[in-house]
Amino acid sequence: MKSKSIGILTKPKFPEVKTTLHAVVSWLRERRIDVILDHTSATLLGEPGGLQKTQLAGKADVLLVLGGDGTMLNAARLAGERGIPILGVNMGGLGFLTEVRLEHLYPSLDRVFANEFVLDERLMLRTHVHRHGETVAHGVVLNDVVISKGTLARMIELKIAIQGRFVTNLRGDGLIVSTPTGSTAYSLSAGGPIVNPAVQALMLTPICPHTLTHRPLIVPGNVEIEVTLTSRDDGAMATLDGQVGIAMSQGDTTVISASEHRTRLIRFPESDYYDVLREKLKWGDG
Amino acid sequence: MKSKSIGILTKPKFPEVKTTLHAVVSWLRERRIDVILDHTSATLLGEPGGLQKTQLAGKADVLLVLGGDGTMLNAARLAGERGIPILGVNMGGLGFLTEVRLEHLYPSLDRVFANEFVLDERLMLRTHVHRHGETVAHGVVLNDVVISKGTLARMIELKIAIQGRFVTNLRGDGLIVSTPTGSTAYSLSAGGPIVNPAVQALMLTPICPHTLTHRPLIVPGNVEIEVTLTSRDDGAMATLDGQVGIAMSQGDTTVISASEHRTRLIRFPESDYYDVLREKLKWGDG
Amino acid sequence: MKSKSIGILTKPKFPEVKTTLHAVVSWLRERRIDVILDHTSATLLGEPGGLQKTQLAGKADVLLVLGGDGTMLNAARLAGERGIPILGVNMGGLGFLTEVRLEHLYPSLDRVFANEFVLDERLMLRTHVHRHGETVAHGVVLNDVVISKGTLARMIELKIAIQGRFVTNLRGDGLIVSTPTGSTAYSLSAGGPIVNPAVQALMLTPICPHTLTHRPLIVPGNVEIEVTLTSRDDGAMATLDGQVGIAMSQGDTTVISASEHRTRLIRFPESDYYDVLREKLKWGDG
Amino acid sequence: MKSKSIGILTKPKFPEVKTTLHAVVSWLRERRIDVILDHTSATLLGEPGGLQKTQLAGKADVLLVLGGDGTMLNAARLAGERGIPILGVNMGGLGFLTEVRLEHLYPSLDRVFANEFVLDERLMLRTHVHRHGETVAHGVVLNDVVISKGTLARMIELKIAIQGRFVTNLRGDGLIVSTPTGSTAYSLSAGGPIVNPAVQALMLTPICPHTLTHRPLIVPGNVEIEVTLTSRDDGAMATLDGQVGIAMSQGDTTVISASEHRTRLIRFPESDYYDVLREKLKWGDG
Repeated sequence: MKSKSIGILTKPKFPEVKTTLHAVVSWLRERRIDVILDHTSATLLGEPGGLQKTQLAGKADVLLVLGGDGTMLNAARLAGERGIPILGVNMGGLGFLTEVRLEHLYPSLDRVFANEFVLDERLMLRTHVHRHGETVAHGVVLNDVVISKGTLARMIELKIAIQGRFVTNLRGDGLIVSTPTGSTAYSLSAGGPIVNPAVQALMLTPICPHTLTHRPLIVPGNVEIEVTLTSRDDGAMATLDGQVGIAMSQGDTTVISASEHRTRLIRFPESDYYDVLREKLKWGDG
Repeated sequence: MKSKSIGILTKPKFPEVKTTLHAVVSWLRERRIDVILDHTSATLLGEPGGLQKTQLAGKADVLLVLGGDGTMLNAARLAGERGIPILGVNMGGLGFLTEVRLEHLYPSLDRVFANEFVLDERLMLRTHVHRHGETVAHGVVLNDVVISKGTLARMIELKIAIQGRFVTNLRGDGLIVSTPTGSTAYSLSAGGPIVNPAVQALMLTPICPHTLTHRPLIVPGNVEIEVTLTSRDDGAMATLDGQVGIAMSQGDTTVISASEHRTRLIRFPESDYYDVLREKLKWGDG
Repeated sequence: MKSKSIGILTKPKFPEVKTTLHAVVSWLRERRIDVILDHTSATLLGEPGGLQKTQLAGKADVLLVLGGDGTMLNAARLAGERGIPILGVNMGGLGFLTEVRLEHLYPSLDRVFANEFVLDERLMLRTHVHRHGETVAHGVVLNDVVISKGTLARMIELKIAIQGRFVTNLRGDGLIVSTPTGSTAYSLSAGGPIVNPAVQALMLTPICPHTLTHRPLIVPGNVEIEVTLTSRDDGAMATLDGQVGIAMSQGDTTVISASEHRTRLIRFPESDYYDVLREKLKWGDG
Repeated sequence: MKSKSIGILTKPKFPEVKTTLHAVVSWLRERRIDVILDHTSATLLGEPGGLQKTQLAGKADVLLVLGGDGTMLNAARLAGERGIPILGVNMGGLGFLTEVRLEHLYPSLDRVFANEFVLDERLMLRTHVHRHGETVAHGVVLNDVVISKGTLARMIELKIAIQGRFVTNLRGDGLIVSTPTGSTAYSLSAGGPIVNPAVQALMLTPICPHTLTHRPLIVPGNVEIEVTLTSRDDGAMATLDGQVGIAMSQGDTTVISASEHRTRLIRFPESDYYDVLREKLKWGDG
C-alpha cells in the first residue's frame, strides 16, 4: 500500500496509549508518512490543532486504532462510506476486532506498507427510525441495533416484519438485530449463536422473551427488517453499537438492513478467527 | 372460617370487573359479611368513601382479589406482615397466583366460609438498599428483586456475596433474585428453572451475563444475599416485583433474604401446580 | 409443468393415506398422468409390482409425498442428484417441509400442472466417514448429520476442524451438523437458533457440551467441516437425518460439506416460512 | 476422631497415586492407624490380599479417597447406608467433591484425627426400576439418575409424575433426575441451574426436549418422582451416576426419591463452595 496518510484514533483510557502514540507518530513521520490526528490524540501528544473525529476518515487513507473493540466500533462508523482500511492495535485484553498485539505494532505497520495483508470485509447494518412517516434518526453499525425497554418498564412489545411479511409479536426486554460481527457481543450474552463473519446473514436475538419459544433467528443478509414498538414507550430506546441511543415512541418503526458499505479490517494471513474464539471463550481447557 | 370481613382488591382494567364487583358485594352483604373496599373499588361501585389500599389488610380477615397475577403481587404486599389469606379470582387468562376462575367464584366463596380450603404459604423476600451505611429503601416482594442496568448503559457490574462470602462479580444487564413463586415470572424469561413453591430456596438468575458460565444459582432459603453495584450507576435500578423502582448509586448494596412473613394463598384440594404449569407453558401438545 | 410422470411416496402409518392414495392415483390416471409407485404404495393400492424406492426418482419427473416431515427427508434422499421437484402433502400435523394440507391436494396438483409454483431450493449436506484413509460410509442429508455418544458412555470427545484449521475439542453428548432446513429439527432442541433456509450457511450445534461456552456456531455454506472422534468409541454413532446410523471407531473422521445437489421443494406463492414457524412454535398467543 | 481404621480407595489411572498410596499407608501405620485396603490398592502396594470394594465400608471408620470426583461417586455408593465419613484427596484437577489438594494431605489427616473438621451431608437418590409390578433393578446415587434414548433412536417419550400426580409427557433425548450435588455434573451441560448442596431439593432436567418450554424443574426433596418409558425402548437406558446402566423396556417405571442415607464428606472450615464454583467455571476473569 502506498499509504500517503494514516489517521490515528486512540482511546486514552487504556494504559500505554500516550507512550505508544508518541512513539508511533515519530516512527511514521521518520518514514515520511503523513499522520492525521483528531483533537484527542493531538492533545495527548501536546500538539496544537487536530481534526474533528468525523473529519479523520475524509483525509486519511488508512485508520490506525490504538484501543479496544469499542474504539474499533467507533472507527468503523467514522470510516463510514469511504470504507478506508482499519488496523486495530489492541491496548487491552484480546479483542475480536483488534488484530495486532501491541508488541507486533511496528512489524505490522511494515507489512501494511509492503502490502502484505488481506482486507476482511465486514457487513454493517444501516438503520432508520420512522415516526409518522418521517425519519427521525438513522445510523450505521458494525455490531448491532438494540431496541430495548426502559429501566422500570417490565416488558415492551415489538412487532417484527421481514421483507414486509409479519413474523411475530415479541414481548420481553427487547430485541438485538446484529451482524455476524456482532454475534460475539451482546447477542451472545442474550443466548445467540456465534456466526462467522463470512456468513452473509443478519441475526435477530430476543432479550429475555416472555414466550420461551422465541429463539434467535438467522435471516439472509439481503432482507429488510422492520421492528415496530407496539406497547407504550416508557423509556424504550434504540441503541446503535451500544453507543448512540434514540428514544422510541409508541408506533415508531426501526427499519434495518445491510448497508451497501463494508468495514474493511486489515488482517494478516496467520490470524485466525477460531484462535480468537478459543481464547476469548476459554475453549482450550477444562 | 368465621370470616367477619372481606377486603376486596380490584384491577379495573380487566373486563367484567365492575359487573363482578357489584354482584359479589351484594352476594356478600346478603350473607351479612362485612365488605371492606378501597377507593378504587368504592368508586367503581359508585359508593362514597373507601379506604387507602394500605389500610385494607389492617381491617379485613380475608382479601378477595378480582384481577390477575399482577394484582395478586399487590395484594401480597398489602397483606404484608398480617399474613391474611388471599383468594385470587382470575379476571383474565389463567394465572399462576389466581386460584379461581370467574365462573367458580360463588362456589369458591361458599367453600371458604365452610372452611374447605388449604393455605398455600409462599416465601417472600425482604430487601434493603444500603448507601453509606444507611438504609435508603426497603420492601417486601413475592416474586423478585431485580437489579438492572439503565436503558442506555451497556452493562453494569455487580458484586455478589452470600452469607458474607464472596461469590462472583457479575457483568451484564443485571440480576434477578427471586422466590420459587417468582421462578415462573421474569426469571424464566432470563433462563432460570421452574422452582416448585414448596422448595425452601432463593434463586439468583443473571440477566444476559457477559461471562457465559454465569448460570442461575439456587441457594437455601435461609441465607442473606448482598448485591453491590460496583460499576457506575448510569441509571441502574432495583425493582421490587416489577412495580417499585429504586434508583441505585455506585456502591449501593441491596441486601435480600427471606421475610419472616409468608403470603397465604387460599387453595382448594383439586387445584394442582403442575396442571397450571402444563397449561401456561403449553406442554400438553405439539 | 408438462409432467409426464409422478412418483408417489407414502408413509402408511398415517391415517387416510390409503384412501388418499386410491383417490389421487385415479385422479392422476384420469388426467393421463403416468403414475409410478414403489412396493409400499402398490401394495397399499392392491396392485402388483411397484419399484424399489431407490428407483422412483430415476423414473419420475415429480415426487408426490403423502406423509410427514420424516417422509420428506426420505424423498429428498431419493431425489438425490437428479433433484426432481417434490410436493409434500401433510397427512399428520403441520410440517416444516410438507407444503400442502390434505384438503388442498387437488387444487395444488392443478397448480403444479399449470406451472403456478416456485421451486424452493434447499441446501443438503454430503458426508463421508474416513477410517485409516478409507471411506467407510457416505450419504447425503437434508437436515443433519449427528455424531453422538453411545447409550452408556458418559461423554465423547470430538476434534473439530473447519477448512483444515483447528476449531476446538468438544466433550459432551455429541455434535449436530445441520443445514438451515435442519435448524428447526434436532438442533433446535439442543439449543440452536432458527436459520431461514435461504441463508447459505451450515450450523454446528453441540449436544450437552461439558464446556459451557461451547455454543452453536454458524459457518459459511462453502466450508468443509471435519469431526474426528478422539475419545474411545464406546458405541458412538454418526446418524444421517435420524435414519441411517454408522458405528464410529476411535480416530474416525466425518467430513461434511454442502452437496452440489439441492432438494427442490414445490411451493406456492402464498405459503410463508414465518407463518409455519409461528404455528409450530406457538408464537401467536400467550 | 478416634479413628481406629481407615479404608483407602484409589483410582490407579491418576499419576502419583502409587507413590502417594505407599507414603500415606506408611504414615498411617506409623501412627498405629489400621489401614484397610481393597484388591486394587493392595496390588498397587505389592501386598497380598485386600478386600472386595464392597466390603471396605463395612470394616472402616473413615474412607480416604485418592482420585477424582468419579472415585468419590464410587466411594459414596460404597459408604452406602453406613454413612461413614469420606475424605477426598484430589489427584487430578480441582474437583467438586474432593476436598483436599495432594500437597495438603498430611496436615489434613492430622486435622481429621484432631477432630477439626465438619461433616457436609449430601442428599442421595434411591431409585427402583419397576417392570410388570416387579423391581428389576435398584440403586443409590449421589449425582444423578439419567433415563436416556438408545444411540440410534431419535427420541424417547417419558411420562413424568410427582407424588402420584401427572406432570408432563416429555419427548427428547431423555431426563436427568439429580441431587443438588449432581447439579454441577451432567445436568449443567443439559442447561440446568447450579443448586447449592444445602438446598433440600431434587431437580428434573430434560435432555434436548422436543417441546422448548420443557425447562429444568426443581421440586422439594421429599417427593417421589415416577418416570415411565411410554415410547418403544430401542435401547433406552437408566444410568446411575454415569456408571451403572439398566436397559429399559417400554412401560418400565423408574421411581426416584431421596434416600434416607446421606453421603458424609469431611470438610475443613476454610473450604468454600463458591470458591470451587468460581475456579471450575472460570468466573474470575474475562
